Amino acid sequence: MPLPRDCRALLDEVSAHNARALGRAITLAEEGGDRAGELLCALEEIPLPEAATIGLTGTGGAGKSTLAARLIDHFRASSRRVGLIAVDPSSPLSGGAVLGDRVRMMRHACDKHVAIRSMASRGRLGGLSAATASSARLMKLFGCDPVIIETVGVGQAEFDIVRLADLTALVLAPGLGDDIQAMKAGLIEMADLLVINKGDLPGAEALRRDLEPIARDRGRALLKVSARDGMGIDDMTATLDALFCQASQSGALADKRRRASDAETLDWALELLRHRLEPIVGAQGKALRDKDPRVRAQMAIQDCFLSL
Amino acid sequence: MPLPRDCRALLDEVSAHNARALGRAITLAEEGGDRAGELLCALEEIPLPEAATIGLTGTGGAGKSTLAARLIDHFRASSRRVGLIAVDPSSPLSGGAVLGDRVRMMRHACDKHVAIRSMASRGRLGGLSAATASSARLMKLFGCDPVIIETVGVGQAEFDIVRLADLTALVLAPGLGDDIQAMKAGLIEMADLLVINKGDLPGAEALRRDLEPIARDRGRALLKVSARDGMGIDDMTATLDALFCQASQSGALADKRRRASDAETLDWALELLRHRLEPIVGAQGKALRDKDPRVRAQMAIQDCFLSL
Repeated sequence: MPLPRDCRALLDEVSAHNARALGRAITLAEEGGDRAGELLCALEEIPLPEAATIGLTGTGGAGKSTLAARLIDHFRASSRRVGLIAVDPSSPLSGGAVLGDRVRMMRHACDKHVAIRSMASRGRLGGLSAATASSARLMKLFGCDPVIIETVGVGQAEFDIVRLADLTALVLAPGLGDDIQAMKAGLIEMADLLVINKGDLPGAEALRRDLEPIARDRGRALLKVSARDGMGIDDMTATLDALFCQASQSGALADKRRRASDAETLDWALELLRHRLEPIVGAQGKALRDKDPRVRAQMAIQDCFLSL
Repeated sequence: MPLPRDCRALLDEVSAHNARALGRAITLAEEGGDRAGELLCALEEIPLPEAATIGLTGTGGAGKSTLAARLIDHFRASSRRVGLIAVDPSSPLSGGAVLGDRVRMMRHACDKHVAIRSMASRGRLGGLSAATASSARLMKLFGCDPVIIETVGVGQAEFDIVRLADLTALVLAPGLGDDIQAMKAGLIEMADLLVINKGDLPGAEALRRDLEPIARDRGRALLKVSARDGMGIDDMTATLDALFCQASQSGALADKRRRASDAETLDWALELLRHRLEPIVGAQGKALRDKDPRVRAQMAIQDCFLSL
């Protein structure tokens, strides 16, 4: 049966757990333009089911994709729908072979209760944070709980993505070299939970001992798992549940969601301004071009303001 | 001898090839604030030596760091000073173990004619593009020619970085899986030159054959090298020289530098606006918070410009 053209009707199909409708809605939102605007406006009118978003991040090689697959299995075993948004700010490929998709696809491709979407940053209309937030909302409408937001890398772009989640697990693994430095560099700020994956390898226990004092000082839970063998996954999901309850009750979850909403708003604002500023900067005359870029920037902002 | 406090005097030391002064100047520029402003203003007054910036990018595992080390060796053999800025938008660590630093450090750490700087995106005051551009200018003042800007990953952040370079080489290697798709995804737009590294491996020749028609259609040079064995490096530098001459004569280089300057200006403008918008968004009242993030964004922009 063909999908409805009307945005509200399409969203009703998503609510009714129509996977094709979900895919179409996410694509429409990503394409931007008027149709996306209509869709997102219609989405704002619909109260979403209560659901958690879980962020999963860490440097490459820590085994996040394998861990994400295990988490999906766990939630599916209790008949929950699960969403996964794999965000790779350092890849140009949207919808393609990103972040271990092949691994994921083999297990979950035919499961209508699992919604998977890959997002990359190039060729994207609008900001990646805003697109991720919209997709997460659509997956919640579909009935996903949780929605997992997975990203690789721990830079600013990745930090901006995981800020959208209610809870974030930072995945580490022995032998990747930068873990203690990373913790000292404040990477621990990104996470509610530190997970040492590949827990069966030599070095995993030493890493856990090294991280323990840092985790304790900052009140972060520290776990050791092996995604490949399935070890420690139940502990991890139980810890996530406990942290979620705690955060709900203390009001920390509401604060987190406010800040995530602020981050999404800022992302939209900067995208709107980027579109206005780009032609203004491009059109600056020779006299101005010879100046310091910061002076040029100030002038461009003034011109932008005058044109609003 | 201690370094001068006065910005212009510090820059004179950089001109006089004082490596410590260069390090201090780059650090000052990164720290932001008034001192950075003074330094960058003083820098604008000084005519820089003519020098090329070469961008080096590609997905992880393609061997860019090894290739960058070979390029440095090549230029050093003709007694040129070389700069290398290793930019990793997906890492939080500035000045630390980023992008194969250890490999690089062993060879070039004691060479006063090689300036190396690592930059990551988190904890950065101001945009990464602007910081990279300032560092490149300081390295040119020091006498570096070329300045190599190396980044890992091929997403929007990395694209924004390599846009600053006069010429960019996209480094690929057999077995990484996404190369043809990447080319079809328009990744070829990032590069003037396609370099297949690990040319000794099986698969390298097949990759070259696959990429040849795409490279030919888009008028891009395609080379096969082995950074590990030093094979093809002379060809690569000769090709870069030829492309640089061509671009200088045709006016394409001047256009490229204008666009790079526009990109840097836009980066500054968005950073300035981000700082103004963040508190405005954070202070939006409950009624507004319940609205669509795009509506909130529009209101925040209005408030921002009213306060300018």
